[in-house]
Amino acid sequence: MRATFSLSAADGSARAGTVTTARGSFTTPCFMPVGTRGAVKHLSSADLEGLGAEVVLANTYHLMLRPGADIVAELGGLHRFSDWHGHMLTDSGGYQIFSLEPSIDDDGAVFQSVYDGSKHRLTPESAVDIQARLGADIQMTLDVCAPLPSSPKVITDAVEQTARWAERARAAFLAGDSPAVQSQFGIVQGGVDPTLRVTSARQILDIGFDGYAVGGLSVGEGRDEMLPALAAVTELLPADQPRYFMGLGDPVGIVEAVASGIDMFDCVLPTRLARHGTLLTSSGRVNLTRAEFARSDEPIDPALANSPVARWSKGYLRHLLQVKEPTAPRLLSLHNLHWLLTFVAELRTSIVEGEFDGFRRRVHEVWS
Amino acid sequence: MRATFSLSAADGSARAGTVTTARGSFTTPCFMPVGTRGAVKHLSSADLEGLGAEVVLANTYHLMLRPGADIVAELGGLHRFSDWHGHMLTDSGGYQIFSLEPSIDDDGAVFQSVYDGSKHRLTPESAVDIQARLGADIQMTLDVCAPLPSSPKVITDAVEQTARWAERARAAFLAGDSPAVQSQFGIVQGGVDPTLRVTSARQILDIGFDGYAVGGLSVGEGRDEMLPALAAVTELLPADQPRYFMGLGDPVGIVEAVASGIDMFDCVLPTRLARHGTLLTSSGRVNLTRAEFARSDEPIDPALANSPVARWSKGYLRHLLQVKEPTAPRLLSLHNLHWLLTFVAELRTSIVEGEFDGFRRRVHEVWS
Repeated sequence: MRATFSLSAADGSARAGTVTTARGSFTTPCFMPVGTRGAVKHLSSADLEGLGAEVVLANTYHLMLRPGADIVAELGGLHRFSDWHGHMLTDSGGYQIFSLEPSIDDDGAVFQSVYDGSKHRLTPESAVDIQARLGADIQMTLDVCAPLPSSPKVITDAVEQTARWAERARAAFLAGDSPAVQSQFGIVQGGVDPTLRVTSARQILDIGFDGYAVGGLSVGEGRDEMLPALAAVTELLPADQPRYFMGLGDPVGIVEAVASGIDMFDCVLPTRLARHGTLLTSSGRVNLTRAEFARSDEPIDPALANSPVARWSKGYLRHLLQVKEPTAPRLLSLHNLHWLLTFVAELRTSIVEGEFDGFRRRVHEVWS
Repeated sequence: MRATFSLSAADGSARAGTVTTARGSFTTPCFMPVGTRGAVKHLSSADLEGLGAEVVLANTYHLMLRPGADIVAELGGLHRFSDWHGHMLTDSGGYQIFSLEPSIDDDGAVFQSVYDGSKHRLTPESAVDIQARLGADIQMTLDVCAPLPSSPKVITDAVEQTARWAERARAAFLAGDSPAVQSQFGIVQGGVDPTLRVTSARQILDIGFDGYAVGGLSVGEGRDEMLPALAAVTELLPADQPRYFMGLGDPVGIVEAVASGIDMFDCVLPTRLARHGTLLTSSGRVNLTRAEFARSDEPIDPALANSPVARWSKGYLRHLLQVKEPTAPRLLSLHNLHWLLTFVAELRTSIVEGEFDGFRRRVHEVWS
C-alpha cells in the first residue's frame, strides 16, 4: 500500500504530519527505536508502549539468520512474534552486509553469517521476499551503501547498482501479495556529492515507491558535507509521501534534517550511549560514570519529571552502572529513549506552533 | 523493634500469618527476591511492585564494598536509594565472606574484596553498624557458616563462635539507635546434627532477638538430612515471632520448611535459573533452550494467565535467549519470580483453607 503523508503544519521546509499505512497512522517527525534482533536491547514491547513509541525498526540481516524468516512467519510475523501493535519497519539487510565486506555482483551480495560463518546470498528479490515473510509494515529495498569517504567511481557505481536493484526490488514487491499490507520505501544513495544525490533521487523517483529514504549518510562525514547532500534530495521528494533519514539520531542532526524536510529517523545511538553510561538530558550529554555523581540524590534530568526513571537518583543509577548490574543499562536505555521521544515530540510542537526556528536555535546552543 | 508474628491460620505446624515491624506488615509464608547489589538482576523496584513482592533482601557484603554504607546512608538508606517502599532485609555479610575463606579469630573475620582485592575486617559490632547505616527493616547477626559436610569439631566450633558473636551483636544493636526502626534476627547454626541445632537454638533464644533464622542449611546436603535438623530447631522457636530459613527457594524445600513451621524464605535460584533459560512452571522445570520450543506459539505457562510475560510466546523468548538479547533474562526473571510469588501465595491459601496436605502432595507430584 502506498504510504501517504498528510501535512498538519509546516515551518519553512520542516514538516509536522501523519503517515498512514495499511496498519494505521503515526505522527511525524518520528524517531524509531531499533530492535535489532526482535527486541530493543534490555526492553520489551511493553516498555516501548510505555514510552509511547509509534514505530520500531527491526534488522533483516539478523532476523534472517536467527531465528530465520520462516520461523518468524510461522509465529505470525514480527508483530505477533514480539507482540508489538504499533508500526514496524525492517531494513533490507544491506547496511549490515556492507560492513562485512561482501562479494557483490550484479545479481546480489554474498556474505558470511556472524553467528556460524555460513555463506548467504541476498538479492533485491530475496530481500523483498524475506521482508514479506518478516511482515513489517514498511520494507526497504536492497541498496549499495558505499563507505565515506570513497572515490567518485565507487560512489557512482553504488548509485547505479542501487538503481538497478531498486527496479528489480519494486517489480518483485509488486508481483507478490505484500502491497495489500506492506509499504516499500526506495533508498537514495550518492555519498556527499549533491549532483550524484540528485541523479540517484531521480532514478528512485522514476521507479516510484511508497516512501523515500536517504541512505549512506551519517556514516562519519561532517555535518557540513551531509546537509547539502541531503538538501539536494529532499527538494525533489514528493510532498505527499514520507521521507526517512536512515541511521541518524543525534539532536542537532535530527533538527537539521527536519529543517531540510525529513520526517522519520532511526538510530542505535540513544540505547548504545545508555549502555555505556552516557545520558541525553536537557543540559546535553552527561557521563554518569563520573565520580561527582556518586553522592547525588538528584534525578538524571530534573527537567524531565515524567521520565520513567525519574524516581531513582543519579547516585543509585551510577552505583548500578559501576557494579555492572544489568538493571543499569535497562533504566538508562528507558531514560535515553524517553528523552529522545520527548525531544522529537517537542520538535513537532514547535513546527505546529510556528516556533521551529527558536527550537532549532536552542538545540544548537545546548548540543553544538 | 521486636518483629511480631500474628497467626491467621495453622494447618499442622504450617503457619499463615502476618509479620509486623516498624515499617508495617507483610504476610507469610513469604518469599524475598534477592537484590544483591541494591537491585534484583535486570529488575527495578517498579518491577518488584508490579510483581507484588513484599520483602526484598540486599547483601551487606556487596553494599559495604560498593558503593559503601556511608554513601547509601547519605542517599537516604536502602529504601530511598533503590526507591523501594516495601520491607527490606539485609544479611550480615557472613555467608558471602565464608565462601571467600576468610581468616577468622574470636574478634571477627578478615576477608578480601572481590572488587579490588583490598582487605576488610567484619566483626559482630561492625556488621550491626553497617546494617544500621544501610537502613533495612530487618538486620541479621554475623554468624559462622560452616560448609557441609564438615567434621563435628568444625560444626561445634561454628555453633560456639556464632553464639559468642550473637551476644555481642545483640548488645551492639541494643546500644544504638536502630531498635526504634530496625528489627534484628539471630541465626541458628549446627550443621545437620539435630542435637547441635538444639544447642545453637537454645543459645540464640537465650540471648533473645526480634526474629529467628536458620542458617547453614540448603548448602548441598540432602533433604533427608536437612529436614530433621530444621525440625529440631523450629519446635523450640517462639510462636509469636517470625522464622526465616536462609537461602532456600525450591518448591519442595519451601513446602517442607513451611510444614516444619517456617515463615520466610530467600533465594537467588529463580532469577539465576531464569538467566540460564530454565523456567519454573506449573508442570515443573522447563529448559527453554530446547529446540522443540523454537516454533512454539504458546506462552511459557498456560496455567499462569496473569504472568507479566504471558503475552510473549516460548518461540519468541527462546529466540531472544539464543541470540543473547538482554531482554530475555529480564523477561524470564519476571516470569520465575511471578511464578514463585504465586506459588507461595497459593501455599498460604492452602493453609488458610485447611488444604495444606493436598497442596504439599501435589507439589511433590510435580517437583520431586
